[in-house]
Amino acid sequence: MSYTKVKYEDIKKLCNLVFEKFGFNREDSETITSVLLLSDLYGIESHGIQRLVKYYSEIKSGLININSKIKIVKETPVSATIDGMGGMGQLIGKKAMNLAIKKAKTSGMSMVVVRNSNHYGIAGYYAKMAEEEGLLGISMTNSPAVMVPTFGKDAMLGTNPIAISFPAKPYPFLMDMATSVVTRGKIEVYNKRHEPLPLGLALNSDGEDTTDPLDVLLNVRKNSGGGLLPLGGSKESTGGHKGYGFALAVEMFTAILSGGFTANKVSLDRENGSGTCHYFFAVDYGIFGDKQSIEENFSSYLNELRNSKKAKGATRIYTHGEKEVESYKDKMKNGIPVNDTTLKEIYDICDYFSIKASDYVTKVV
Amino acid sequence: MSYTKVKYEDIKKLCNLVFEKFGFNREDSETITSVLLLSDLYGIESHGIQRLVKYYSEIKSGLININSKIKIVKETPVSATIDGMGGMGQLIGKKAMNLAIKKAKTSGMSMVVVRNSNHYGIAGYYAKMAEEEGLLGISMTNSPAVMVPTFGKDAMLGTNPIAISFPAKPYPFLMDMATSVVTRGKIEVYNKRHEPLPLGLALNSDGEDTTDPLDVLLNVRKNSGGGLLPLGGSKESTGGHKGYGFALAVEMFTAILSGGFTANKVSLDRENGSGTCHYFFAVDYGIFGDKQSIEENFSSYLNELRNSKKAKGATRIYTHGEKEVESYKDKMKNGIPVNDTTLKEIYDICDYFSIKASDYVTKVV
Repeated sequence: MSYTKVKYEDIKKLCNLVFEKFGFNREDSETITSVLLLSDLYGIESHGIQRLVKYYSEIKSGLININSKIKIVKETPVSATIDGMGGMGQLIGKKAMNLAIKKAKTSGMSMVVVRNSNHYGIAGYYAKMAEEEGLLGISMTNSPAVMVPTFGKDAMLGTNPIAISFPAKPYPFLMDMATSVVTRGKIEVYNKRHEPLPLGLALNSDGEDTTDPLDVLLNVRKNSGGGLLPLGGSKESTGGHKGYGFALAVEMFTAILSGGFTANKVSLDRENGSGTCHYFFAVDYGIFGDKQSIEENFSSYLNELRNSKKAKGATRIYTHGEKEVESYKDKMKNGIPVNDTTLKEIYDICDYFSIKASDYVTKVV
Repeated sequence: MSYTKVKYEDIKKLCNLVFEKFGFNREDSETITSVLLLSDLYGIESHGIQRLVKYYSEIKSGLININSKIKIVKETPVSATIDGMGGMGQLIGKKAMNLAIKKAKTSGMSMVVVRNSNHYGIAGYYAKMAEEEGLLGISMTNSPAVMVPTFGKDAMLGTNPIAISFPAKPYPFLMDMATSVVTRGKIEVYNKRHEPLPLGLALNSDGEDTTDPLDVLLNVRKNSGGGLLPLGGSKESTGGHKGYGFALAVEMFTAILSGGFTANKVSLDRENGSGTCHYFFAVDYGIFGDKQSIEENFSSYLNELRNSKKAKGATRIYTHGEKEVESYKDKMKNGIPVNDTTLKEIYDICDYFSIKASDYVTKVV
């Protein structure tokens, strides 16, 4: 795949315009664009603007209902249960985390769960929203089933990412990771490059370790057996049951608490929502002690980790969120790399809506 | 190692008596015994009554202060920060989770963090306390540093278990697992059996993969480099940074929120507490919807997981907590297997306190 670097401000303007053409108002278009572009800025291409065209086809199929309004089903000073009513995941996610943040500022902490939503982009976006307000933030989501339980061969769990963010200097803590060994996006990359999968990432339809990325992708799409392995791999001896446990806990926090669908019932072949469920949690850690001391202690510990001795052959120890900050700075300065397939898709959809993309996008490289 | 099976009621009576001889009152002795024996009943020997003699030496060294009283440093309707004052971990843990449970029943959810405590046994005990009250329960703890960060060779993190429990039928959900690939206890088992470690569990003092369990144990004890690998192993390609992230999040929830020591500063060579930090969280999920429906939905999903298709060569898929229930039933009926070293240690300490152990313990096998 070859890449073209595009200026952040340019692609942002263009995306906003395209989402408006999809039927969203200005504010909502900006929200969706900001979630997608943060992913690209962090270097997570799979959840960035390459999704744009996919979202359009999901709007056309009726999966995503752009006119729906969220419904607060139940509410207490520390919680809310939201029905996403099949709307756009990013819009639902931002509203839900904003509600969690508001309640946390009053009550000390707040948990908001969402059912009947759609793909919401990177979980880290929402965790970071809380961090930027000086709170501890957590977000999780389920997804259509792609992960097998330990000793199983049917995909029964989503990739089920967990994102946690907490203020720290110079790099805020931000972990955002699927509970599978790798994401579906990584399998797609192996497939596009015609490279075999390393063993330990996925199972074929018989439930055996496989090196064939295309086979895995097709099986998962057809729901015909096999799928991604949980973090820790296929065996209990390497901790596969632990990754499976984390993925299962995500189903509990998202689908079970919200009264929504677990991964094995989330479906893209539906109208008015895939049934995807999310979880948002914000904690004002000032309820435990002096906020500044807490932040300083955490910053010191993260620094101790980065400065601790390196393993043979290693030159650097990272803390979570550090790579994202570096990637963000680099891409803001040098442009966002967009692969040519994605760029063509965006240009084509612009043509369709009579937008002259070249008026907006200055290629950097 | 050879094992002797001992009746639960017998060993319980004896342990209670021994802890009273250590200086604890009756009620506290029963609490400590119940935490240790639940571990044995679940088949987690490393955290069970084999710790009894170790605790005595920690009381004598002054590490554990049996006369200390916990201090509530800060409190809100949804939270508390507790200073454990160097007391016995199990007693502090039970009080902290009881406080979290009480507040959750009033406020919907509650988070209690503890600093300056000691080893508290299995994290699952406390998560399960909440589950038995019809709540979602979470507990985590840090420990003296034994785990290396990804690309590092210094142990900078504890084994940092995360336990989550939630009511379900027929098996309550209970996951309780170290965020390392395996626990230190597992490395000790390889050492006792004179078996080489499989690659991927631990690093030597140069930060290289090692098969030598004794070397790892000695290095960790002397803090001279090397240690356990995080879940996912040594490489980012197998998700090692994810296990590292979970372990780091546990430090944040336990040590950072409570204003206590992170793993690299927790020490057993101190008086009045190792500085171990804990985390307790209880949620009355009735704030999100009808409790009975939520429990039924979760039970159904766990059942679907267990009944989903098995991978080639596998005969059974477990959900977390299922093995514990089976082990519990078996050991309540057929006795708890105690290895002969542990049994001798217990008999010796009984002699020391002029307790005639054989009056209490009927060997089953």
